[in-house]
This record gives sequence, structure tokens and C-alpha cells, in this order.
Amino acid sequence: MPLPRQPILNANTYMTNKTNAEAQTMKVARAGDLVMLLTSDLKRYVIKLTPDGTLHTHRGVYRHSEIIGAPFGSALQSQTDAEALILEPSLPDVIAHLKRGTQIIYPKDAAYIIHRLSLRAGSRVVEAGTGSGGLTAALAWSVAPTGRIYTYELREDNYRVARNNLERAGMLPYVEMHLQGIAEGFRQRNVDALFLDVREPHHYMAQVRGALRSGGFFAALVPTVNQVSDLLVALESSGFADIAVEELLLRAYKPVPERLRPQDNMVGHTGYLIFARLIHAALDPRQWMTKERRRFQARRQARQRIAEADAAREARIAAGGKKYPPMPLP
Amino acid sequence: MPLPRQPILNANTYMTNKTNAEAQTMKVARAGDLVMLLTSDLKRYVIKLTPDGTLHTHRGVYRHSEIIGAPFGSALQSQTDAEALILEPSLPDVIAHLKRGTQIIYPKDAAYIIHRLSLRAGSRVVEAGTGSGGLTAALAWSVAPTGRIYTYELREDNYRVARNNLERAGMLPYVEMHLQGIAEGFRQRNVDALFLDVREPHHYMAQVRGALRSGGFFAALVPTVNQVSDLLVALESSGFADIAVEELLLRAYKPVPERLRPQDNMVGHTGYLIFARLIHAALDPRQWMTKERRRFQARRQARQRIAEADAAREARIAAGGKKYPPMPLP
Amino acid sequence: MPLPRQPILNANTYMTNKTNAEAQTMKVARAGDLVMLLTSDLKRYVIKLTPDGTLHTHRGVYRHSEIIGAPFGSALQSQTDAEALILEPSLPDVIAHLKRGTQIIYPKDAAYIIHRLSLRAGSRVVEAGTGSGGLTAALAWSVAPTGRIYTYELREDNYRVARNNLERAGMLPYVEMHLQGIAEGFRQRNVDALFLDVREPHHYMAQVRGALRSGGFFAALVPTVNQVSDLLVALESSGFADIAVEELLLRAYKPVPERLRPQDNMVGHTGYLIFARLIHAALDPRQWMTKERRRFQARRQARQRIAEADAAREARIAAGGKKYPPMPLP
Amino acid sequence: MPLPRQPILNANTYMTNKTNAEAQTMKVARAGDLVMLLTSDLKRYVIKLTPDGTLHTHRGVYRHSEIIGAPFGSALQSQTDAEALILEPSLPDVIAHLKRGTQIIYPKDAAYIIHRLSLRAGSRVVEAGTGSGGLTAALAWSVAPTGRIYTYELREDNYRVARNNLERAGMLPYVEMHLQGIAEGFRQRNVDALFLDVREPHHYMAQVRGALRSGGFFAALVPTVNQVSDLLVALESSGFADIAVEELLLRAYKPVPERLRPQDNMVGHTGYLIFARLIHAALDPRQWMTKERRRFQARRQARQRIAEADAAREARIAAGGKKYPPMPLP
Repeated sequence: MPLPRQPILNANTYMTNKTNAEAQTMKVARAGDLVMLLTSDLKRYVIKLTPDGTLHTHRGVYRHSEIIGAPFGSALQSQTDAEALILEPSLPDVIAHLKRGTQIIYPKDAAYIIHRLSLRAGSRVVEAGTGSGGLTAALAWSVAPTGRIYTYELREDNYRVARNNLERAGMLPYVEMHLQGIAEGFRQRNVDALFLDVREPHHYMAQVRGALRSGGFFAALVPTVNQVSDLLVALESSGFADIAVEELLLRAYKPVPERLRPQDNMVGHTGYLIFARLIHAALDPRQWMTKERRRFQARRQARQRIAEADAAREARIAAGGKKYPPMPLP
Repeated sequence: MPLPRQPILNANTYMTNKTNAEAQTMKVARAGDLVMLLTSDLKRYVIKLTPDGTLHTHRGVYRHSEIIGAPFGSALQSQTDAEALILEPSLPDVIAHLKRGTQIIYPKDAAYIIHRLSLRAGSRVVEAGTGSGGLTAALAWSVAPTGRIYTYELREDNYRVARNNLERAGMLPYVEMHLQGIAEGFRQRNVDALFLDVREPHHYMAQVRGALRSGGFFAALVPTVNQVSDLLVALESSGFADIAVEELLLRAYKPVPERLRPQDNMVGHTGYLIFARLIHAALDPRQWMTKERRRFQARRQARQRIAEADAAREARIAAGGKKYPPMPLP
Repeated sequence: MPLPRQPILNANTYMTNKTNAEAQTMKVARAGDLVMLLTSDLKRYVIKLTPDGTLHTHRGVYRHSEIIGAPFGSALQSQTDAEALILEPSLPDVIAHLKRGTQIIYPKDAAYIIHRLSLRAGSRVVEAGTGSGGLTAALAWSVAPTGRIYTYELREDNYRVARNNLERAGMLPYVEMHLQGIAEGFRQRNVDALFLDVREPHHYMAQVRGALRSGGFFAALVPTVNQVSDLLVALESSGFADIAVEELLLRAYKPVPERLRPQDNMVGHTGYLIFARLIHAALDPRQWMTKERRRFQARRQARQRIAEADAAREARIAAGGKKYPPMPLP
Repeated sequence: MPLPRQPILNANTYMTNKTNAEAQTMKVARAGDLVMLLTSDLKRYVIKLTPDGTLHTHRGVYRHSEIIGAPFGSALQSQTDAEALILEPSLPDVIAHLKRGTQIIYPKDAAYIIHRLSLRAGSRVVEAGTGSGGLTAALAWSVAPTGRIYTYELREDNYRVARNNLERAGMLPYVEMHLQGIAEGFRQRNVDALFLDVREPHHYMAQVRGALRSGGFFAALVPTVNQVSDLLVALESSGFADIAVEELLLRAYKPVPERLRPQDNMVGHTGYLIFARLIHAALDPRQWMTKERRRFQARRQARQRIAEADAAREARIAAGGKKYPPMPLP
């Protein structure tokens, strides 16, 4: 028994079926909007509506003019009768459909970074590098309309891709883009939060201190454990406290109620997230080290002291002095 | 070799050490602010500053009056010389330190829900139940100052705890609280997003349809797989599409660069997240089912048809009719 | 600077370079052995050596006759000078290279099942279904040479594939294969362990009881949570205790010491593992239920009692009796 | 409604209820056996049966003499009427209940190591260090009765604990224990597999080569990523190929069919597992490096060549030579 053929609502038929009052409360797609079409083979198309635009898919052609004026949540037919849902793209949908020059941030990571940095309308945030602008768009989304993202990118090709992406996503008004590296420092002072997604974040601690306000939120994303180690060393010696290293794993399920199970494949790794708080330059952050770190440092210092004492003793012996027993390990 | 004793900056000494210009740019703790003290044994205290308040810890007593006026990122001594960092609490810190009547939302989940629901300044969101108000605070944070959270709670004790928590977190102005269940429906219409954290979310699909705008974002958090299955069935038959089931695992590392490794213990489960988009009531959401779901349905329907045919054939035979071969399985 | 060209050892050159004494201690590939060739593009070929066999790869042709007599750990050149390592295949390598009629067991699961079932040389184990014989081979490996695997398979195509696979892996002598379903029960009695990998394991509890000795080890692998629930209900009502549900996630890393990080993709799900111990038929296994289970049962029974009392009261009222207040919920 | 009181079977009542024929096929607990008692509060007690032994629990006292002769899978009452199941301990149960001087291996890791090392009856395996003997017992279990585990431990306290544990587990006959470090090398030659669980495994590659046969299986367990990196460097330069780094995460579920969900807490980390195959000393293992490793090496060598060329050019310039353009990056 085939599924019953459903009445499809396009902009025109739909509007006539509804009272004016009902229609007014519905959100309707307009020219200039980003819209997502979800076809029945579950392909997603994120498009910017223009009066004479068309979307070609392997299920047929959809005309923008038929989408403009249609309420979100309604559907549209291609000439081949293939229905597509008309939806506002979610923020993750928007980011997933940006043009990619570089690796695009994953929703799980973007969401968590924004939450851990405590961003909200009005926050001022520095980001480097811009990459394809995926995270930039998410950051801007969270601080708009009164906040600002200051983003730095060294490579001109990335810069151009990101600029187009941000404009397309409608986020450019909230972003100040810098086509420059960060070795010379950032142009901003006292920002609320600063995020680094560069190859060697541990080289830029002084620059971070220059831009981030005392007590401000720092975060970085790095793909390898070696970079995590390097960054931890740099943070500790540059006046950061409350340091945390975390990663998120997302597990998706097949949404079949009678045979519920995780997807066969999952993303095994996107990156390690490092979070820290900048403290006043006159303070020694080692006072707020974790127990493990403290224990490790103590053990290492003990070992060093013993090695020094041993060396001194041997030097004395070599110089003809008396022989003392070696110091015991703690 | 003990760590060198550091000069501690409190409000007064600090301000005299800085030029006026520098001091003005720094963010300073004020009466009424939520402030986090991070003691050197890495305990976190989130307090609301009052002119004559005191914080008693096992490292000594800290007086609010000495914190008021101090720049964030500076430190304070108790009478027993134990230093504590003065920080603005992050949003996760604020939520973690709310008074708990119920299970508090985890940062990983709150962050991801907000991102997937595409919340931003101005969004209108319905939530049920309020619980202790942890997620309510995070939702309000993300839609403030122009958006609104409408939250429903049946139990008066939870309602009171949540109200105090939201006030303390400064989020009450952005929240409209309802002390009532949701069986009768929500009072709002055409909200942008709706989140359910109730025991049997699958019972409230009609109520959700009544409050959420066409195309709007739906999410729910449930702890058990049985609830996931029930909710999937309900969503499918209530006009939802783009249904996803996901969960997040957070793995934290010991931040010791020379001995980097994950923490020994992790949270094994917080909940399953279900996301969906509400579509127009006249549409059949089965057109946008996943391949797995579609295949499962087809197989089940085939099995039913065969069973019916077999039954019919046997009835005919029993009634003295001819014997036909059974229908082959597809 | 290209990597220095290495001297390649094949059987003949190698043997002349070594003293007889050294050569005798080395393990050498022989005709009839399963051998793995690891080419320099890290492709793995598991082959059975025959005097006149050849292996065709996209890196050239390798002749079995040149492998026979070569020590394991040495290398061989194709006519195109591509070197391949000669290794004994590991047990996971053998299983991964079996001919597949069905999903092959993953090493993490095979290993854990064997460990949890406490198999060792001499164990007697029943398995159903045989599938492609991957787990059968692993089970046989662990109980050989004195133990026995009794395996059941309903489909003749699977049976044939599995038989060839087991013969190829050298495990057939330790396996007794049954081409039959399990609805009629197993032919064995008092086996040490029993493993089910069938679609609806919960239907075969009586059959399991008939074959497994009292106190014996039971395990099953199922892909969906619905099957887990069904099996748990069946186990509880069929005299099993010490019931556990577990799953394993394997995370592989890119073995680059200076850029160490997890692989980008991982297997997201293979199956849920259920373990239990069969107890004597006269015992009530509910005495050894987990706390959560016990609490759930108690709550459900309380709810039932209240519902019954309410119904009785209403019946009395309907019959003209007095009105009593409803019983409070616990 | 309370659960119906069940008839409890102890050795004596049980034997009289069964025909002789049936009883003979059942496995019965005997003096000297390791037995696990599972009490109704789900505590596990692993005990060695002695004719006059007693087990004191907070549910009462159980006398060994009442267990001896009882069939496995039956139950026993304490004087306070608390029933306990009588089971053979599984291998993981045995290991979990050993006396601990050091961290005990987790079942998931022990199982996977044994599988990846392809151990079976007859295998000869070297292990260092012995620790508390948990993994030693599991290794011995898998190679008994014809194989042998050669285990090395430097610390006498661990050695004693491990010896008692192995004796208790019945595995001592299959183990040869060495109370000595491994810096001087192992006493065995041409073993099939070798496992290292020492603090700095990368220091012992020469010793491993001395003991492991060509083509043999190597594995190590280390807790930190820094140790993984060090070991990878050492393996690459010491003639190992087919190198893999993996870790396993075990997720346990609450076995409640109507409310199925993962346990709230899980073990977040036990260790990283490194696997490799020893190849002939005359071969260059870099021929079988992974793509990532190869790419990294190539990039590093290119960078070095450029740096050298740059330095040479600058030296020439400094010496008054002509100025050439710098070499382009690849």
C-alpha cells in the first residue's frame, strides 16, 4: 500500500486556505532570506532567495519565486512532483553549508565554546584564525546585535571565503575582519573572550594578554595532544588559571523507534578544547594548579634537587673531598 | 624550594598601583554582582556581593567589602593568608552553583540544545518543566535582552527554587514563569522553539503543536531509550520532520603537560537529546523519514500484507476452496 | 633525501646469511600455513600458502614458493620491486579476512565475549547463529585443542561460507557444525557457555536452559536497544542472574608521535553485549536483581495496587457505597 | 505484594531432590575451588573453599562446608536467612578480587590484549612488570595448560602479592616468575609475544628484540599520551612495523528493560594500548609507516632541507657572495 499522496502547500494555495489572521502570525520566507529545502531523499539545500533564482537538484528544479511568500514548515513541488520542505536553516545548518576553504567547526564544539566563554548579546570577542568563518558566524550569532567579533586571518584566500560566508549568513555586520597575522598582536584591548584556532597557539600568549581583559575567558581548539601539552606549558607560565582540557564526542542514533540504535559510524575526533581564565599579571597562577599538576611539579623538583646534590657531592669527591651517602628519594 | 610568596592585590592596593586610565578599562566587582572565588585548593564559591557579607570557607573568611571594587582576575587573602582568585563566574559556573531541587542540566547539553534550537537575542522559547531553573537560566542568557523564555512547572517547590535561582542569576527579567502543568496546553502561540524535559514528553504533542510556530524548533531531553522510542513514535505521527536523536559524551583531561591523560572517571550518561522541526499540519511527515525508518516501515507493511493474504487463503481453504501457493517474501 | 634502499630478505638469501643454529629457532612459513603479506601501502593480504600459488596485488605479483621457507618478520619483493612483510596473521587479521556472508564480529567484541565467558582450553560452548564463522573461529581458537564449539546455523548459504572459513582458519577440528535452527533446542547438555547472535534471542530461553549447565555463562550480542529490553525481560523470567548490559567503543589513534591524535572516524556502534549466569530452576532470580530494577518493580507494583484499590472503591461507590478518600501515592 | 519466598537449595536438600543421573552431570563446588558467592544485595565474595572455613558478611555467616558439594547455580542461606548464589567466578571476577598492590588490569583491556597478541593454548609470552599479577593470571588462563608466561617484577612486595594471587587463582603452574628488572634483558628467547606495563617502555626496545621472535607480537599499556609518543618513536627506530595505538571505552547500562539507560558514571580512562610486530633486524620498518607518519616525515625533511639551504645561502652572503632568492616551500 503506497503512502497516500499528500496535498502540497505552496505559497499561493496555502495563503488562500488560511484566514488572514492565521496567516499573519506565520513566519514566511522572503527574498533575501536564507532558506533550507529538505527534499524527500533527505538532502539539505541552503539557499539565498532571489526573485528569479532556481535550485537544480537531482529531484528536479525548484523556483525561488514559489518559495518567496510561503510559510516556513510548508512544502513545495518540483516540476517532477518531488516535494521539498521549506525550513529556516538552523545555525548548524547554515554553518554546515558555508563554502569551505578549511575544516569547518562542528556544532558540538561551536556550541560548547560559546557556552564556556559565556558569550551573549553584547560580548566583545577576538578570534584567530578566521578560517572559513564557520565559528565566526556562530560567535557573531551569539553576541549580536550589540556585541562584536574581531577576527584575524593571515591568508587572503581564507579571508575572502570567510567574508562571503559571513555576508551570506547575515553575520557580517557583527564582525570586524582583519587580514593579518597575530604575531604583531591584536588591535583590541580588554575584550571579554578570546579564541585561538591556529597551528601553534602556545606562541601567542603575550598577544593574548594584550587583548584579553583581566579575568577574561580564553579558549583554543587544537587537533593533537602534542599541541595540548605545549599550550598547557605556555598558559601556566603566562598568567592563566582555571585551566581545563576537554573533548566532546557526539553519538547519533538511527531514529527508528522499533529498532533504535546508534549510527554505524561516528566522527572519532574533531579537536581538543582548552579553556582558561586570564589573571592579573602580578599573580602567580601556580597557586591555582590542579592537585595532579602540583604533585607532578613537586616530584620533579625533588628529583632535580637530588640530582643537583648528587652532582655537587661527586664534584667534591672528584676534588678530593669526603664521601657522603646519596640523598634518599622522597 | 617553596613557591615564592606572591603579592596579593586587593581592591585598595591594586587601585593605587595603576594609573586612572588603566583602571577605568578594567572590569571591577560591584555590590550585587555574582562573583566566583577560586581558592587555592580549587574549590569554587559563587556568591552575590553585599556590602557587609562574608564568605566562610575552610581556608578562612573572605569579606565581601574587600571584593567590592577589586578588578576581576585579581586575588584576595583570607585572614589566614589563603589567597582566592576573584572571577566573574562563567555561565556554567553560575548554573552549577544554583540551589538544586532536581537534576541540573550539564553544560555540554545546555550548550548543544541552545545551538541546535538556534537561539539568539530576541528568540521566544517555551520550556517545560522548569525544574531547578538551570536550563531556564542558560536559555534566558542566550535570548536576552530582547527575547523571552516561557517556562512551566507543576510542582510548587521546584517553582520556588527555580524562581530564586533565576533571580540570583539575574535572568528573571527575561523569563515568564508558569506554575502549572502542560496537559492543558501552553499559553503562548507561534514561539520560535520549544523544549521539553518532562517524564512523558510523547503525551504532549498536541500541546506542542499549539504553541510552536510552523517550521519551529523542537527539542527534548530524556534519560532512557524507552522514552526515546515513545517520543519518536509520537513525533512521527504529529507532524514533525528532520528528527534526530543524539547524545554527547564529555571527556576531561588532567591538565598536566608532561603526563597528559584523561580523567579517571567520567559522567557516563546525562540524557538523550531529540530534535525535530514542526511542519505544517496538512503535510505528511513520512515523506521525510530516514532511509532506515522507511525500510523498516516497508518491511513491516510487507509482512502484514503477507500475513493477511495467508489468513485469507487459509480461510478459503477451510471453507473448501482451492489451495494456492503462499505469497513469496519480498 | 630518499629512504635508503634496504636489503630484502627472501627465503633463499636469508637462509644462506644465517648460521644453521640461528635459523632453526626462527619460525618459518610453510606450505599450508595462513600467511599475511603487508605491502608498503599497508594493504593486508591473508593467503594460504600452496607450492605453486601466486598473489596478484596492484604492487605486483608475489609467488608463494618464495614465501615458503622464509622466516616470519622477513620481507619479499614482487617483480616490480615492491616489498611486502611476511607475517603470521593475528587472530583478528584472520577473522577480518574471512569471506563474508554476514556482518563479521569486531575484535573488541570477540575478545570481550571470550573473556567474560571465561573460555579456555577445554571449554565446551554452544553458539547460534554461525553466520560467517568469524566468532566461531575466535571461540574455537580459545578452547582448542581440547574444547569444543557447537554452532548452529539455519541458512545453508551461511553454513557453507562458515565451513570454508573455519577450514581455512584451521579451526574446523574444534567445531561441530549444525545446519539447523534452534527452535527445537540444542543437541548438547551441560555446556560451559552459550552465546546467541540471533535476531530474537528472547524467544529461546527454554532452549538455552536445556543446553547450558547450572551456573553456566550466557552471552548475547544484539544491535538495537529494543532487543536488549526484550532479552532482559526474558532472562529475568527464565532463571538468570548477574545480568549485565555493556558495550565497547574502540578509539584508534594515528601513530604519529609528534602529532598524536585519534583517527578522524570511528565505528559508532557494533552491538550491545548482554551477559548472565544461569541459576537453578527452583530459585527466584528476582532475589539478585539490581537496585534500580528492584526500585522500578516496587514502584510499579505500588501503582498497580493503588489503581486496583481506586477501581474497587469506585465500584463500591457506583454500587451505592460510602465515599472514601483516595489512597495517597507513596 | 511481597515477592514469594523461594525454596533455597543447599547441597543436601538439592541432592535429594534430583535423580542420581541428573546430579552427576552438574558441576559441583569442591574443597580447594575458587567460588563466588553473590548475595542478594549484589555483593560479590570470591573465596577458596576449605572444609572448616567461614565467610563473614554483613548479611550473616556462610559456612564453606555447606557450599562444598553444592551444585553451581544453587543458593545457600546464612543463619540470618540471607540467600547467596553459589557460582564459579568468571575470569574477570577472579582478577577483580585479587589482592592489590598496584592498579589491576581492567577486563576490557586484558581481553583485548590477549586477542590482539593471538594467545592460545601453548603460546609462550613474556610480561613485565608483574604488578599484582592480574594480567599475568589472564595471560596464563589463555595459554594453559601447554603454554608459559614469563613475568618480571623488580619490587619484592609486588612479587609476593602476585605470587599469592597466582597461586590462589590456580595459575601459578603456568607462570615462571622473575624477581628482577628488565634493564639487563629477558632470559627467554624467541617468545611468541611480549607485553610491557612499565613506566618507560621506550627504554627497553633492545631487550624486547632479544626476547621476541622475528614476526612476534608486541603490546604495551601506558596511561599518558606522552608515553605513547615516546614509545612510538622507539618502536619506529627499533625494527617494529604494523604499529597501532588504540583505547577501549566500556559503557555499562542499568539492566532495567522498561527504563534502559547507561550507568551514570563510567571509567574515563584506563590506558592506551600500543601494538606492533617485530620485524627482521635487517629491514627498514619505515617502509611500512602509515600515510600520516610518512607525510609528516616528508614535510619535516623538506623543512629541514630548506632551513639548511637558507642557512648556507646566508653564510655565503655574509661571506660577500651573491644574493639568491630563497627556495620555495613545497
